[in-house]
Amino acid sequence: MSELGYDADLPAHVERALGAFLGRAGEEICHTEPSVRTGIDALSEFVLGGGKRLRPTFAWWAWRGAGGDPAGADAEGVVQAAASLELIQACALIHDDLIDSSDSRRGSPTVHIAFAKHHADNGWLGSPATFGLAAAVLIGDLALAWADDMFADASLPPATMARARPAWRAMRTEVLAGQYLDMRTQATGDTSVEAALRIDMLKTAAYTVQRPLHLGASLAGADDELISTLLRFGGDVGVAFQLRDDLLGVFGDPSVTGKPAGDDLREGKRTLLVALGLERAAQQGRANVVTVISDAVGNAELADTDVDNVRQALVEVGAVDAVEQRIDELTGTAMAALDRAHLADPAPAELTELVVKATKRAY
Amino acid sequence: MSELGYDADLPAHVERALGAFLGRAGEEICHTEPSVRTGIDALSEFVLGGGKRLRPTFAWWAWRGAGGDPAGADAEGVVQAAASLELIQACALIHDDLIDSSDSRRGSPTVHIAFAKHHADNGWLGSPATFGLAAAVLIGDLALAWADDMFADASLPPATMARARPAWRAMRTEVLAGQYLDMRTQATGDTSVEAALRIDMLKTAAYTVQRPLHLGASLAGADDELISTLLRFGGDVGVAFQLRDDLLGVFGDPSVTGKPAGDDLREGKRTLLVALGLERAAQQGRANVVTVISDAVGNAELADTDVDNVRQALVEVGAVDAVEQRIDELTGTAMAALDRAHLADPAPAELTELVVKATKRAY
Repeated sequence: MSELGYDADLPAHVERALGAFLGRAGEEICHTEPSVRTGIDALSEFVLGGGKRLRPTFAWWAWRGAGGDPAGADAEGVVQAAASLELIQACALIHDDLIDSSDSRRGSPTVHIAFAKHHADNGWLGSPATFGLAAAVLIGDLALAWADDMFADASLPPATMARARPAWRAMRTEVLAGQYLDMRTQATGDTSVEAALRIDMLKTAAYTVQRPLHLGASLAGADDELISTLLRFGGDVGVAFQLRDDLLGVFGDPSVTGKPAGDDLREGKRTLLVALGLERAAQQGRANVVTVISDAVGNAELADTDVDNVRQALVEVGAVDAVEQRIDELTGTAMAALDRAHLADPAPAELTELVVKATKRAY
Repeated sequence: MSELGYDADLPAHVERALGAFLGRAGEEICHTEPSVRTGIDALSEFVLGGGKRLRPTFAWWAWRGAGGDPAGADAEGVVQAAASLELIQACALIHDDLIDSSDSRRGSPTVHIAFAKHHADNGWLGSPATFGLAAAVLIGDLALAWADDMFADASLPPATMARARPAWRAMRTEVLAGQYLDMRTQATGDTSVEAALRIDMLKTAAYTVQRPLHLGASLAGADDELISTLLRFGGDVGVAFQLRDDLLGVFGDPSVTGKPAGDDLREGKRTLLVALGLERAAQQGRANVVTVISDAVGNAELADTDVDNVRQALVEVGAVDAVEQRIDELTGTAMAALDRAHLADPAPAELTELVVKATKRAY
């Protein structure tokens, strides 16, 4: 447990709250049915095993910035409510890894892979892959149900909780809508700039930044004007985050990003970077460049030299510069919105630091 | 919309509440992102397209029996809270069908099959099966998140809602634990009587009867003694339901059960009926009967004549009689508990009718 206060070490407090909740909830159901222990343990390890705690951090600083008192009666309840966002994220990642057939996350096997292996190692009946699928679906579902339990059980006055529900509701629906849109866009082969931006808006901006800020601010009783300013800030920051992530996914150092260079291309991710690359190459009449890029996207067998060719193409047609410029613009408008929000100290400085860290060039 | 009161036509009121919620929630997200419409429509059709509304009905009669007034201020909120159980059930069924690779439900294609077909019909990129899987995972997740939203937004006083949370919490965790236990038991090949009963307890009794009763009674402010009597009643009723369902799964008329005779055997369902069949055949030293039964369970290619052989075996070793006797005993103890509960009229008569309908011999 952290000896530091909430402001100084929020991630440690978030992890303490998650650990306590998962311990309680896990004991309760394992008391009823001991054989679910392996599933519960897998969820706990997943949730407690890593992550930047970005969503709780945004929620916390919005709460602080809107007047929340870290020494007040609500602070611990706000930490618990904010920490519950990590359980939504656990569901999203576990189910996403299953849908994308991803083998590893944060250097460990994904849940469906780990359970398929558990099945095979034990020589159980039926198909290991089906067992892995079932485990990942059910453990993800449990994370989603428990997110709601952890949120609802935060010790905060009913009126405070009622104010926070619109943000809570929107967050879960929007992330699922974003994932749905993402898979639909990959299926239809829509490579437009517009589709890429809509996915960025729902999957990253709304879910990772806007709604956590909205949640924190509404727990502090912020008025509509402040909330709407924070949503502006969060929308721009969130898209900028995603654009930086897209660049790292193609140009990033694998030792820093934790995934093989070019994996975003192999997975067929529809990013603004790729959309702009295709659009500009077409505008410039460079049909061969269009082919280089479109053949690469979604090609699971893409060789490293092909990745190099795509990189070069994206630079040459100006897509990389255009994305960098968009990040700069979004960061600028975000900072202006943050200024207008007149948040209480030290929230502006803390939020600025988060923005700088997540949007700066790193390759 | 039903013109009848809640007591006279609860299912119609449950469907009205579900339709109104799904309409509101669907409009909101489709306004943000119109392309999710197909997914939202699929969920609405699934939820509104059928089902016996058993869980809301148990919740309602427990609320009425514990003193809830159908003409009072809380009645509409209780209908909404009870109706939200159908969204948990939608998630459970959509995800279960995916895990079990079931092709149809209530005469229509299951969600993953329908979306795979939608993908194939449109000639989209990638694998139709993967698209179907993604859609089923995400639409099930949305149902689970919306269950919480619909429940939390029921217009009931905060103190009333707080009383109902333990039942709500237990219900979702228990159904997921039951499904987990079920798939684990199928994988390990545990054919014991004990395992079958534990699955029945969690998957059917707790989820379908006990927790809905618990929820309704706690919304009415029932004391611990009444709740514990209702849990006794619900546990026995729920297991009796499942045992009747197990018998129908092997002996039922396909035109009544809606699924091919013997499908429970082909799917490898671990039922008390099968467990007792194996146990008794072994006790009676009839190794060939043990083989007939164990070879049938989980054999997807099982012919109708094999199903006949299993039926005969289950009758001969006395497993069918034993299950019938168990149903009688459970119905008896359930009725005694209902008596002790001294519920307000007409709850005892209504609950008795539900029990009789769901446990009587029907083949």
